[in-house]
Amino acid sequence: MLFPELAVCGYPPRDLLFKKRFVADVERVTAEIAREIGEVPALIGFTTANKNGQGRPAYNSAAFCHRGAIVQVARKCLLPTYDVFDEDRYFEPATEPTVLEFAGRRIGVTICEDIWTHTLVSTGCRYHLDPVKWHATAKLDLMLNLSASPWQLSKNSVRRTLVIDAAKTCGCPVAYCNSVGGNDELLFEGRSVVADAAGNVLAGFAAFREELRVVDLAAREPSYFHSSYEQEELADVYDALVLGVRDYAHKTGFKKALLGLSGGIDSALVAAIAVEALGAKNVTGISLPSIISSQHSKDDAAALARNLGIDYHTLSIADVVAAADKTLAPLFAGTPAGVAEENIQARARGLLLMAISNKFGSLLLTTGNKSELAVGYCTLYGDMCGGLAVISDVYKTQVYALSRWINREREIIPQNTIDKAPSAELRPDQTDQDSLPPYDLLDAILKGYVEGGLSRADLVAQGFSRDVVNDVVRKVDLNEYKRKQAAPGLKITSLAFGTGRRIPIVQKYVS
Amino acid sequence: MLFPELAVCGYPPRDLLFKKRFVADVERVTAEIAREIGEVPALIGFTTANKNGQGRPAYNSAAFCHRGAIVQVARKCLLPTYDVFDEDRYFEPATEPTVLEFAGRRIGVTICEDIWTHTLVSTGCRYHLDPVKWHATAKLDLMLNLSASPWQLSKNSVRRTLVIDAAKTCGCPVAYCNSVGGNDELLFEGRSVVADAAGNVLAGFAAFREELRVVDLAAREPSYFHSSYEQEELADVYDALVLGVRDYAHKTGFKKALLGLSGGIDSALVAAIAVEALGAKNVTGISLPSIISSQHSKDDAAALARNLGIDYHTLSIADVVAAADKTLAPLFAGTPAGVAEENIQARARGLLLMAISNKFGSLLLTTGNKSELAVGYCTLYGDMCGGLAVISDVYKTQVYALSRWINREREIIPQNTIDKAPSAELRPDQTDQDSLPPYDLLDAILKGYVEGGLSRADLVAQGFSRDVVNDVVRKVDLNEYKRKQAAPGLKITSLAFGTGRRIPIVQKYVS
Repeated sequence: MLFPELAVCGYPPRDLLFKKRFVADVERVTAEIAREIGEVPALIGFTTANKNGQGRPAYNSAAFCHRGAIVQVARKCLLPTYDVFDEDRYFEPATEPTVLEFAGRRIGVTICEDIWTHTLVSTGCRYHLDPVKWHATAKLDLMLNLSASPWQLSKNSVRRTLVIDAAKTCGCPVAYCNSVGGNDELLFEGRSVVADAAGNVLAGFAAFREELRVVDLAAREPSYFHSSYEQEELADVYDALVLGVRDYAHKTGFKKALLGLSGGIDSALVAAIAVEALGAKNVTGISLPSIISSQHSKDDAAALARNLGIDYHTLSIADVVAAADKTLAPLFAGTPAGVAEENIQARARGLLLMAISNKFGSLLLTTGNKSELAVGYCTLYGDMCGGLAVISDVYKTQVYALSRWINREREIIPQNTIDKAPSAELRPDQTDQDSLPPYDLLDAILKGYVEGGLSRADLVAQGFSRDVVNDVVRKVDLNEYKRKQAAPGLKITSLAFGTGRRIPIVQKYVS
Repeated sequence: MLFPELAVCGYPPRDLLFKKRFVADVERVTAEIAREIGEVPALIGFTTANKNGQGRPAYNSAAFCHRGAIVQVARKCLLPTYDVFDEDRYFEPATEPTVLEFAGRRIGVTICEDIWTHTLVSTGCRYHLDPVKWHATAKLDLMLNLSASPWQLSKNSVRRTLVIDAAKTCGCPVAYCNSVGGNDELLFEGRSVVADAAGNVLAGFAAFREELRVVDLAAREPSYFHSSYEQEELADVYDALVLGVRDYAHKTGFKKALLGLSGGIDSALVAAIAVEALGAKNVTGISLPSIISSQHSKDDAAALARNLGIDYHTLSIADVVAAADKTLAPLFAGTPAGVAEENIQARARGLLLMAISNKFGSLLLTTGNKSELAVGYCTLYGDMCGGLAVISDVYKTQVYALSRWINREREIIPQNTIDKAPSAELRPDQTDQDSLPPYDLLDAILKGYVEGGLSRADLVAQGFSRDVVNDVVRKVDLNEYKRKQAAPGLKITSLAFGTGRRIPIVQKYVS
């Protein structure tokens, strides 16, 4: 039986590893698990202490358990320390991989990153050791890989290629077992895979759900493919976000979720995902119109709630806004209405939604998308209120694509919500495009600037207008402080705001 | 001339290092600086690209500049990757230190962590190389150390000991140059030091302010000590927080700051620090009484504002709270008043303060202390609103000590604010000790649990009551989600909430 990387404690345990008893507790529990193991041996991801008196405090390890005991321990060689990964913070690397001898077979062990040294993976060049090449000379009968590799767009085919090429390089079957589940921002999708020595995929496991199966390595034909092993990318995005909401809510003890429904597409998409994750009876939508809100906003929000079959209430923010304006009037006398007044509306909504969350124990979901969060088109302590940012790594253009995909069989998200011009409705007749470039343009620039690390000159050279590029870059840089206080957001791209992107607030570098 | 580590780009640049042009831009600017250098050579911290095609993308380097050119480049060997430090994420380590040959002298170069391998430093054991021991055999005439070492409590004497012992070990003078300034949470205090070959300190530079001085290495007597080089620890804490507020505000473009004055000791302390940092005319205090607020709260807030000479206004939150209660009444009918209603008050304050911040372009300062933040005795989007958490790494017991210290010559913080029982005043006759153990007890447990990584059993073995320990530990763990959305807070201890402490939200480990 093959388990994922750090299966005993979950991946990533982060600074739990610095708690004085953590590593010893994981070792103790793993020994307990080993005591329950019978004839079927198991390879289980866990941590072990580094007792050399030198180096980092622990190893990222795999316990080979058989007949009641941990028979052998393998250690990870390559420790990812980029994006959301911080393994060098905790772990000492192994200087070479481990080969297990069992039942006359030589079984090579690799842990996740150990096989990510392929030329197609840009991070491979970070390392001075290639465990796959090392194993290629070790006369293996089988390679096992324990992984905790979070899903992200475009990662599926890369991962499969790595497994296939490891099999070909080592001339033996490779069984790759990946974690399933949400851990804060990270969405592990499973999709474990087994390839034979020729690199043919023998089995492809389910994506975004747990699965346990026996795979016959001697089979000449592929023996099993779950329907979700290969599916269209929008289905992956949807499944990923649904899993993320469900696991975050359940692992933090929430059964119910709550969100504001503006009548716009972002909150509609989040509501649809929440219903899939938690069930319609556990989701509440609140419409919070102001005196500015259009009739279509209220109608579209109500139609969405009907389509989803969720609990739905309308609370006008007019009284709270009026009370705030009146309270501030002596201080604000003589100043023109502007961002301060616009934000009062968003914060009145945040205040009411958080009160409902506190009163009824529902998890408030934040509905901002990645495009908005990137340029700061959102109000801190207003629409940014919430425990989980469901679509904060989904660009606005992807929000549309995903909404249309959700509607592929019947209208769940009202068509008018998809068709109308997006608006924050914080002042009369406002639309997003008063302040922002069209979303297809904005998203393309953001991908280059935020994910690609490109400079303004690089983006202009790609054909984007200098003025638009300067404006977008300025907004992204200026709003670092908002993102520092954003709710954790589910990660679906190669670079999400949050743990994996660490930009100082007070810096002034612009390239 | 000796400059600090990464002086050209600031420390830590974090993921700016992943921007495509960043390292090249730093190299280019350093070459420009070198072109301006005349007869006095300079050693300047900067980054260089790793062009080997293997390993991490950059080096943490020092440029030895003389007569218009970068003559030689030294690289850092030991890359801190713990607490707030992530250098393994970006940098490839040098395999051995560098010795410069200049004017017939052999000058050993170390960069910050390179000298932190002494037995008294627990992190020293993370490394497999000791650059000081390496240099001890290199027949040096002088060792230079470029540092960006953030200040924290109890660090002064450790750092001096390291410099003295490096001098004795290598048998040569050591000049240690440390950064000065605030960079988000990190407070670099300078306090550069020069020791002779026998380990006598020849010069001790200013703490928390920039300084440039010539030190004669041939001097037989100490030549210079700034008065702040050695000062009492409370003065250090105060100077650190003042520098942190000033640099955060100015580097983000704010001249003015704003805060809510409750009449309590936390906001009083923050106001006093803000006045020292930005000047009384740039600080505004707002009293935001509710119908529950006591007369002494209002009186004490007003007295503080008078003592400090700051702009002061009173805005009742009664109308906003009443409007929110009325708006929510249909949903809340039949439920008992509780946390939801208490939080509405805190959030009404947050809403009003943020409106004033937005209207007048003032930086809102958050006033919560470390003890509160640890146990979640604070309201997300309420009193947690603000751009900078000034005392979020200061325990409540330290808040008292620092307030008394500020009052050492005359009453700045009203004595009644210091003497009275602390209360959040979110319900009638509430005191902090209704929900929390006495602060001396709470802070002692928090130091063990949060900073020391101790388990509940360890704490009980130290003599703390099991019930109190269980309660505190439960609260700390439960409130991870609040801290994830907290404003950046100035770091003064060995482990602050924020960048240097990375605990997953959904985890369930309790030791």
